[in-house]
Amino acid sequence: WARAVRGLLLDVSGVLYDSGGDGGVPIAGSVEAVRRIKASGLKLRFCTNETQATREKFVKKLQGMGFDISVAEVTAPAPAAYRILKERSLRPHLLVHNDLVPEFAEIDKANPNCVVIGDAAENFTYANLNEAFRVLIGMEKPVLISLGRGRYYKETDGLKLDVGAYMKALEYACDVQAEVVGKPAKAFFESALAEMGIPPQEAIMIGDDIVNDVGGAQRCGMRALQVRTGKYRPCDENHPHVKPDAYVNNLAEAVDVLLQQL
Amino acid sequence: WARAVRGLLLDVSGVLYDSGGDGGVPIAGSVEAVRRIKASGLKLRFCTNETQATREKFVKKLQGMGFDISVAEVTAPAPAAYRILKERSLRPHLLVHNDLVPEFAEIDKANPNCVVIGDAAENFTYANLNEAFRVLIGMEKPVLISLGRGRYYKETDGLKLDVGAYMKALEYACDVQAEVVGKPAKAFFESALAEMGIPPQEAIMIGDDIVNDVGGAQRCGMRALQVRTGKYRPCDENHPHVKPDAYVNNLAEAVDVLLQQL
Repeated sequence: WARAVRGLLLDVSGVLYDSGGDGGVPIAGSVEAVRRIKASGLKLRFCTNETQATREKFVKKLQGMGFDISVAEVTAPAPAAYRILKERSLRPHLLVHNDLVPEFAEIDKANPNCVVIGDAAENFTYANLNEAFRVLIGMEKPVLISLGRGRYYKETDGLKLDVGAYMKALEYACDVQAEVVGKPAKAFFESALAEMGIPPQEAIMIGDDIVNDVGGAQRCGMRALQVRTGKYRPCDENHPHVKPDAYVNNLAEAVDVLLQQL
Repeated sequence: WARAVRGLLLDVSGVLYDSGGDGGVPIAGSVEAVRRIKASGLKLRFCTNETQATREKFVKKLQGMGFDISVAEVTAPAPAAYRILKERSLRPHLLVHNDLVPEFAEIDKANPNCVVIGDAAENFTYANLNEAFRVLIGMEKPVLISLGRGRYYKETDGLKLDVGAYMKALEYACDVQAEVVGKPAKAFFESALAEMGIPPQEAIMIGDDIVNDVGGAQRCGMRALQVRTGKYRPCDENHPHVKPDAYVNNLAEAVDVLLQQL
């Protein structure tokens, strides 16, 4: 799987670090692995569905853990959604994390004609869900834009429901299909490839999510590895539809193999 | 549609009364309509997916509004779920309204091996949803029992997401299919028919929910009317799959027509 590679797409949470209440902890070997990728001349994009913070804040957190990363290297759902809202003159009702709101500061939000849902975490209250629902059901043609379709993720204090679960609740209540921005949407991976300037055949995605990272990237013609860190569970290896090109114990192991091939 | 009828199944919320923060308001003519049904000799069951209160409390509320109703006349999801739990030796983790908890007082809830979800209302917090999710995902074969699959309902202060939306969130997150107790489950209507001792051909369901009341009852071989009260919306009349045997403006109108036929 490691031959003829010119660029890497790295998922962040669960690959670089394990997130938790007080920020997170780097996964052993990952800080060094990112440094080695950059030194090797391989192209690199950080592809995250993180929607609990602006990219600025997100990158700062990772830098604080020792990672060599900058805002310009991050592909994330909020800026992709922002472009869609602008293009289609949509005025969003936001059901997102407080820390993500600044990404939408420039957008007119009066008299909303769509709902944007992200991983709102503590903002997923009964009242806020009812409010987003009422905005949607009140539209002649409800428009729901979801910043990802993840089922759950792991924090240091346990598994948490991800945005996809709440998206499904609203989809069902309003009999509508959400437009998903972020992994596993094809447009999301394609924009990361365009940013690197390489075709999918020369790129590898490395992630911990069998469906959103591995399945999504493979559908774009890329190879994809699943790490056995983060939300990885042994039963992922029996997934009925998705089979990674390889498993690696962690990012460091993937980088070892890759750099031997260069 | 009114010929050869021996029994009626009445939905409650949206047919007898409109619910709201401080209890609810009878729908005009409904108190008198229930009295006339009983005087006519027609058999009668109140078939509710109400899971925000024990049947005792629920019946007391309706009596307070002037309705002639007793606990023994009510078919509701919680007692049906209780029987399933007993039969299969299931120990539930409950995600339900505080006022429903007494219906499960007799059941062993230690070391849960299933999750029971009802319309938990204010108990649908981020923390409680995550907790129910963790219990489910921790099971080798997750068992999720849902007290209904309603999408939303109307209270005096607006539309609210119903249990079905939260059920979908957990189904998606755990890749599991809930077992639905309550309307539109066939077993639920059949138990109401058994309680009346009549075959489906001689029964009519009257409800405001096109899918859960009308569609569910028709699939059991009953006739079904949709009232234009409660959560009824004009677009229900263009429903792609379900067509009521008739529309009536309200319960009183249905009873007028029925009693003329007797």
